[in-house]
Amino acid sequence: MNVVTSAKIRRDLREALINEFPNAVFSFHSNIRDAATRLKDADILITYGEDLTDSIINAAENLKWIMVISAGLDLMPFDAINKKGILVTNAKGIHKIPMAEYTLGMMLQYVKRLRTFDLNQREHKWDKAVKTSELAGKRITIIGPGAIGGEIARLAKAFRMTTAGVNRSGHPIENIDQIYLNSNLLDALKDADFVVSVLPSTKETYHLINKTHFQAMKQDAVFINIGRGKTVDQRDLLEALKEGMISHAILDVFEKEPLNEEHPFWKMDQVTLTPHISSISSEYQPRSIDIFKENLSKYLAGENDYINKIDLEKGY
Amino acid sequence: MNVVTSAKIRRDLREALINEFPNAVFSFHSNIRDAATRLKDADILITYGEDLTDSIINAAENLKWIMVISAGLDLMPFDAINKKGILVTNAKGIHKIPMAEYTLGMMLQYVKRLRTFDLNQREHKWDKAVKTSELAGKRITIIGPGAIGGEIARLAKAFRMTTAGVNRSGHPIENIDQIYLNSNLLDALKDADFVVSVLPSTKETYHLINKTHFQAMKQDAVFINIGRGKTVDQRDLLEALKEGMISHAILDVFEKEPLNEEHPFWKMDQVTLTPHISSISSEYQPRSIDIFKENLSKYLAGENDYINKIDLEKGY
Repeated sequence: MNVVTSAKIRRDLREALINEFPNAVFSFHSNIRDAATRLKDADILITYGEDLTDSIINAAENLKWIMVISAGLDLMPFDAINKKGILVTNAKGIHKIPMAEYTLGMMLQYVKRLRTFDLNQREHKWDKAVKTSELAGKRITIIGPGAIGGEIARLAKAFRMTTAGVNRSGHPIENIDQIYLNSNLLDALKDADFVVSVLPSTKETYHLINKTHFQAMKQDAVFINIGRGKTVDQRDLLEALKEGMISHAILDVFEKEPLNEEHPFWKMDQVTLTPHISSISSEYQPRSIDIFKENLSKYLAGENDYINKIDLEKGY
Repeated sequence: MNVVTSAKIRRDLREALINEFPNAVFSFHSNIRDAATRLKDADILITYGEDLTDSIINAAENLKWIMVISAGLDLMPFDAINKKGILVTNAKGIHKIPMAEYTLGMMLQYVKRLRTFDLNQREHKWDKAVKTSELAGKRITIIGPGAIGGEIARLAKAFRMTTAGVNRSGHPIENIDQIYLNSNLLDALKDADFVVSVLPSTKETYHLINKTHFQAMKQDAVFINIGRGKTVDQRDLLEALKEGMISHAILDVFEKEPLNEEHPFWKMDQVTLTPHISSISSEYQPRSIDIFKENLSKYLAGENDYINKIDLEKGY
């Protein structure tokens, strides 16, 4: 059984795969071009999911399974894949830990004034009068409480926070104290100290968060976006920050990335920004490969209950 | 019944006290000098615990209870207090939330490289290649796992970390996966990614942590001191950082405070320092006063099971 990769796999993980699956023949490559000559005989392909085309799928005559070691599937040629009935699995769910740690880290940086202390250290300034606060007792509203939002809520509860969430059904969710229907989004915002958006980018979510929403928030609220930039009307957000409708924004995603060097966000004290890295972690590949290994064991045993099996019709 | 304060109490808390205890007569002052004329008739005194002397205690003829709204009792004239059999209670336990939040905030700042991203923001630099890590799966060793250490351990477990603790008895503690005896401190250090000291300053703990201990730690270990400066041999720590025995130090306390402006720590990339503020929080007074209120209700009801009653012989 031949396993070909077009994703560059860390050396220690490659060695572990070879050791743990002696009956599989692994052919490791760093990109799809290098992998091309081996694809004809590949049973299994490991990819980041952004390098496949109809012709590649058609050339891979024996391909039975594609493991996408990321969560994004927007660039997958599902029609060709579906026609050949190829199994697709992905690494959904592995983002929740780094993204939730990022969110709590940023919230703590804000309440504990760590940027101010950092600045004071650069200036050799011992200033005990910096007013710090804490997370305990504060309220967080999570827009889009899926796996990532749920992990944020779990940690927020550990920090003795009150949690609110917004979803379609209004059904209760673990670690969320109060659930609001999407239609009551404005209500969910009004008492929040922190509002975190984990919304994906779809037609329905385009500019879903705009001036109306910032106006509904408290003046000392902090808005955090780790979902997608297009879900927020960035001009409205800029205005909201300038006019003091809200107190601060922590932004990992933007309408256009990379964010233009001249954008006012860069130099605003009311903004903490990072370059779309909240999901990145040194543990990313080990966790993806762990999912692959579990699925490979099932595959070899002829079992069928794969982790993160993708519905080829729906594409997720 | 007369309640006199020599600690400046926040206005909203003063109003709440007056409203909730209509039978008590409150006399609020900002320092012991202003409070002096009222002490003669005081039944109860609320103080930060740093402003009392033998003569003040003797002048306060009716004093039955001193509520110290801090945890420190080093400056209390216990002999005089003991002679008059005055009840003493304090605000022990209220530091654990801000100090644990500080610790986790700093650990997240470190693994998520938030200082680097902050610097990049100042330079309008979009750099996705900054290597971030995470807390999940990492190991933390807590030296001095009392109330504060226990709260740190609880949050560390929520972040999916492995926790170790060092204490006198070796008895198991909630949220600590592995307990070491004090005598096995070096063993407890060797696998830790983070070592947090919450040690108090006593004769036994003076320079308890020194070169031997930094040598025992991993080269990529982070040492955090939120206890007392004198528990660490600061020269050894400086050497350990310079020589790369450990990777980073997060320091809120120092042998001499404020830290001298010329001290090398200020400008070292391997050091994150703050001016002894980890226990400070906007919630400090409300929490102390909550303890006072509960105890006052017991006092008025003639009950005797006070929160944080101090043993006058032992002084804690």
